[in-house]
Order: sequence, then C-alpha cells, then structure tokens
Amino acid sequence: MNRQQLIEQIRLKKSYLCVGLDTDIEKIPQHLLSEKDPVFAFNKAIIDATRDHCVSYKINTAFYEALGLKGWEAMEKTVHYIGKDHFTIADAKRGDIGNTSDQYAKAFFSALPFDSVTVAPYMGEDSVKPFLQYEGKWAIVLGLTSNKGAADFELQQAGGELLYEKVLKTVSGWGSPDNLMFVVGATQADEFINIRKHTPDHFYLVPGVGAQGGSLKEISEKAMNQDVGILVNASRAVIYASSKEDFAEAAKAVAKGYQEEMAGYLGKK
Amino acid sequence: MNRQQLIEQIRLKKSYLCVGLDTDIEKIPQHLLSEKDPVFAFNKAIIDATRDHCVSYKINTAFYEALGLKGWEAMEKTVHYIGKDHFTIADAKRGDIGNTSDQYAKAFFSALPFDSVTVAPYMGEDSVKPFLQYEGKWAIVLGLTSNKGAADFELQQAGGELLYEKVLKTVSGWGSPDNLMFVVGATQADEFINIRKHTPDHFYLVPGVGAQGGSLKEISEKAMNQDVGILVNASRAVIYASSKEDFAEAAKAVAKGYQEEMAGYLGKK
Repeated sequence: MNRQQLIEQIRLKKSYLCVGLDTDIEKIPQHLLSEKDPVFAFNKAIIDATRDHCVSYKINTAFYEALGLKGWEAMEKTVHYIGKDHFTIADAKRGDIGNTSDQYAKAFFSALPFDSVTVAPYMGEDSVKPFLQYEGKWAIVLGLTSNKGAADFELQQAGGELLYEKVLKTVSGWGSPDNLMFVVGATQADEFINIRKHTPDHFYLVPGVGAQGGSLKEISEKAMNQDVGILVNASRAVIYASSKEDFAEAAKAVAKGYQEEMAGYLGKK
Repeated sequence: MNRQQLIEQIRLKKSYLCVGLDTDIEKIPQHLLSEKDPVFAFNKAIIDATRDHCVSYKINTAFYEALGLKGWEAMEKTVHYIGKDHFTIADAKRGDIGNTSDQYAKAFFSALPFDSVTVAPYMGEDSVKPFLQYEGKWAIVLGLTSNKGAADFELQQAGGELLYEKVLKTVSGWGSPDNLMFVVGATQADEFINIRKHTPDHFYLVPGVGAQGGSLKEISEKAMNQDVGILVNASRAVIYASSKEDFAEAAKAVAKGYQEEMAGYLGKK
C-alpha cells in the first residue's frame, strides 16, 4: 500500500487506528483453546470485528515466534487473512548488516506480504536501506519509543541534540516520506512538537495508547500534519477488551470508540 | 552453557571459533537442492565437519525467516542437531518493550534451546533485561558492529564519549559477565583496547573475520583477556569455502586453519 492509498483509507474511514495483534496464547479466551489454531482463530475474529474501524493491523512477531513453528504459521495465515485493504505492519524491530537485512526484507516483503517492517536504527545506513528497496513497501524506523528504557539512550545527549533527534534527521535522508515512517511513542507527548519539526512530512506509527497510558487527544493535536501523518496503535486495550466469549464484540466497541474520537480530530484538520 | 563451561571448551579445543550458519539457499551446492530440506542437509554436513574445531555455532535467523515456515523448521532442526557441547547463538538482533522482549526470550530460550540471543540496545533497559532472566542463558548486546553503518550512530559523540562506549558502560550494569556478552566487530580493531578497558571481564562475540576483512591476529592480540574472553565468528569464509560437492571438507579445512591459528594465540596467554 502506498502513501496515497493509505491517506485515502484514512479519509474514507475517518480513522487512523492500527490494531495491534500482540496475540498471547495465555491471554486469549479459554474457549478458543480447543480450536486447531487458537491464535489464528482469535485473530480472525478480532479482524472481522474491527476491520471497518481501523486502517492498519500490526503483528507483533515476538508473540508468534514464542510459539515456534505453529506461531509462524499463525502469523502467515493472519497476514494473508487481513488482505490488501489494510496497511500491514510486521512489528519485528529487525536490523543487521546489509546482506542480512536483505534477508529480513525478503522474509517480510517477499515470503510474506507485509506492507512494512519496524526497523532498529542502531547499526546505521546499510542495516536500514535494504527495507527501502521494495516498491510500495515501507521501513518504520524506531525514533523515540514509548517505554521507560527510551531514557537510557534515545533521550541522551548526542553531540548537541538528543540521540533520537539525530536518528530522525539522519535516517530521513535515507528514504522519503513515501517509504519511511518512524515509531514515536504516545507516552512521549512532550517531544511531539519537536519531532514534527524534524520530520514534517513523515508518517509516525504511534504505539503506547491504552495499556501504556498515552493520550490519543494529545498525540492527535500535537503530531498530525496536513496528510494526517499518524497511525495510532492500540493492542491490548482492543484485543483484550473482554476475556470472555464476547471478546470480538468488546474489541469492536473499543475500536469503534477510538475511531469516533479520531473522526473528531480529523474534522478539525 | 555457562561461562565456566564455555571457557573449559575453549581450553580443551584450543579454539574460540564460532561458525556462522548464514545458510543461503541460493549459495549452497546445487546437488543439495534435491534434498527434502536442503538448508538442514547443508548445515548438518557443515556441523559434522567443523564441530571438533569450533566451540560455538551462530545461526543468523534472517536467512531462515526468508524461507518462511520451512526456514523456521530448518533452524529448529539445526539448533537441536548442534546439541549441548557447543555454545549456540541465535543471531537475531531482537529487542522491544519489556512485555515483547519477554516473548522473544521465550522464543529462543524456551521454545528453542539456544544458549544466547543477540540483542539491539537502542530501546534501553527493559528491552534487554528479559534476556537476562534465564539461568545459564545469555544476552549478547550490540556494542560496536563490523559494518560501515557503525559510523552513523555507534561511533558518534554522545555526551563526551562515543555512543557505543555509553552502551557498553550502561548495559554492563544490567547483567554480569556471566550472562552478558557484547558484539564487537573485527573490523573495529582500532577501538579494541578502549573497548576492553570499559568491559574488562566480558566475553565479546566478534564477527567480521573473513568476508568482511577483519584480522584474527589483531583481534586476538588486542581483545583477549585472562579468560580468553572472545568468540570469533566466521560465516561465509567457512561455510562457502567450496561451492562443490567437497563443501564440507573445504569448510573443515578452513575451520581447522582458524583453530590452529587460535591455538597459537592461546599459547601466548
């Protein structure tokens, strides 16, 4: 999915919601455990219930890898089931020397049909560039993350600026707003105006709303640009809205709630 | 495998060689492509041929993920085939917020029997700590990598020191030399004495010998400590020593050559 198509989907649905499929087999409703593939059964129900209210799904690869082969299979089935109308994100935080990042890009863009992969910037240009070589595909590079550990390096001084600022400025030169996004945590609202200054035209993937405590209102007010420019992810708050048989309806209600709130902020733009 | 067992293996075999199984289906000998699982067949032959000359195997997960389900299965079979006498490394460069790193740790330490995982430090403490919670298992955190991109951030100023130095100093406080190693590229020999000063007791995983051009002699002279303290990885130089039917013998000869050179450096300690 390219930038224009993504913006169209956002305008059409009045939503910039990304639903995070951090599907943990220990947290899904008990009655699904008798299914042949409980993780996929859960994802399928969540996708069916939420697809009208979101424009994107983010698959957190860790939760699938933790189940070994069966997990990888559930991930494969899930991304195919989502289809082409939603922007798909492999939240995989990959990145290695060039010849190895080539293989990761192949894994997610060729063996699997993801639109994008999250990428860690620490190893520099040759670790990121292979993800920028596929037509219509995206690298989503870590900028300022939502977790406590962001203070350890990302928010440290790095030659007259903060490290995450250096990352935004440097990495944005390696691609364009057509194939490069950044991860910016919803819990980092104080830095949002500064972040938008460095990267005015890029989309941000914003996790941290819901379970992690970030405010949708604050992000939307401070980080939106003329093309909307943000995808706000909620994972646990949506998919675990209920632990009972009504889990899909409950997820739908939460996703719909976010969408309606988003429609309000979009109306002001 | 714990630190004491690793040091014993190194002393016993007079080798601190790690063989990197970056197995690319496009580069393995043609005659293996008729096997049911060509990647595993290749790895099995390489392991049989090199196991006496190395103390460790490093599986570069990217090359397996690029093949999808079949690749993950080949990785699983390979790590089981290696067994308990070699130190196994999942070269996966993982790292995410705490609840997600928990899942990655589970993937490699519980669903799979790896001794260690390589971890990217950018997201800070809660992204690394989950890998340090398993008895006898290790996190191998990126310090100064072997690639050109190391200059983009790792070698940049970060508050009066270089970023990779800040990483070594900060991260070494999160674990101990018993559960934490660092990745230090063989191509970075100029920095080796400085690196050893910051982290005198830790083991380093040193990639970059062979195809990437690092010197085994230089690393060994500058980075070894009283417990040896280094695992030197060679991937392409060993596993692709020949592209013909004699690939395993050729790999053995190269591994043996490294081992004999290493025996010489160990003799001087």
